[in-house]
Amino acid sequence: MITVYHLDRSRSERPVWLLEELAEPYLIEHFERIEPIWEAEPAYKALHPIGSSPVINVDGKIIGESGAVIEFLATTLGGGRLAVAPGTSDYADYLFWFHFAEATLMTEVTREIMSEMAGVPYDNHGRVFSRQRTARFLAHVDDRLSDMPYFAGQAFTAADIMMTFVFTTTRLFVELDLAPYPNILRYIARIEARPAYQRSQRIAGPNRVRT
Amino acid sequence: MITVYHLDRSRSERPVWLLEELAEPYLIEHFERIEPIWEAEPAYKALHPIGSSPVINVDGKIIGESGAVIEFLATTLGGGRLAVAPGTSDYADYLFWFHFAEATLMTEVTREIMSEMAGVPYDNHGRVFSRQRTARFLAHVDDRLSDMPYFAGQAFTAADIMMTFVFTTTRLFVELDLAPYPNILRYIARIEARPAYQRSQRIAGPNRVRT
Repeated sequence: MITVYHLDRSRSERPVWLLEELAEPYLIEHFERIEPIWEAEPAYKALHPIGSSPVINVDGKIIGESGAVIEFLATTLGGGRLAVAPGTSDYADYLFWFHFAEATLMTEVTREIMSEMAGVPYDNHGRVFSRQRTARFLAHVDDRLSDMPYFAGQAFTAADIMMTFVFTTTRLFVELDLAPYPNILRYIARIEARPAYQRSQRIAGPNRVRT
Repeated sequence: MITVYHLDRSRSERPVWLLEELAEPYLIEHFERIEPIWEAEPAYKALHPIGSSPVINVDGKIIGESGAVIEFLATTLGGGRLAVAPGTSDYADYLFWFHFAEATLMTEVTREIMSEMAGVPYDNHGRVFSRQRTARFLAHVDDRLSDMPYFAGQAFTAADIMMTFVFTTTRLFVELDLAPYPNILRYIARIEARPAYQRSQRIAGPNRVRT
């Protein structure tokens, strides 16, 4: 049995979305962020030693870290149909976008949050350097989506579940103007039209239906 | 055929080490960092749109991003013996440490570099918050290594190749005192005793033998 511990407005949207795509059964427990800096409530931080979202429970085993959670679920559920198998032609691209999402793109995008927190001026050369890197990364993303409907190629995969979050809920916390990237905007519209994505947003999105 | 494009003092140590562990044939091309901020030379940045290390070439396909490069090589070479397969008992832990290395630990550790670059004072509350997170992560790493010889469990895997770099060459760029973490120190000594690691350091380490 799978439980998703969902922290409001956080990366734990990802496992909820994946489970809805596969129509797998799961339980969900909701946790809140607290002011002034919107940290996770103490009960959430206590779920896993690294103290961040997502955290899931699979038959009693606690798993944290977005990439690990999504790769675990994608390879072990649904006959692995949201993963791409080693030896297939899309495999290298699948892995690139899957890892790039958190290790490189999200890292750079969220530097702005840390800079604000540290009181670094907007036009500081370090912040400018970081924004230039982000712009280069976004241009690469936009370029990829000019050729292909999904990140790994013709098919929707777990790499899309890793990448999408950067362009949706993340933007509640950090300024990220996507107007210069029409292919990213079209991609998001395509994702938002997916019934499983819509269900996951009603369950775990920033404007979720609270019961 | 595999070529590793190795940038001096960078994450491209990882694929060299993995290939030495598996005793697989490969070519290597060396690239330098340039002062004053030790960026990669332009020829390296031109190899891949994201412009960072590592980059490899597998039968003409260019692959970037540490996690993608290492996962690709670990699953497709050596009968997958440095990867952990879905469905086995170590799988969740393997994935956790594999992804945690770059997406969480390295992100937090390298914030210090960005803070220095932006001129943020050492005792700024944002930097203090970040160092506290790093200390919490290192305590979790040390705790893991008090129970297990390697990150995924009893066996050396690609998760070790992802994690080790944070505690070795990274420390040429950022202060990271490991004295409070005796299990991490013992682990590094265990890794440094591996013949394949030693070979990889002679080929691609910070003090490599230049020919």
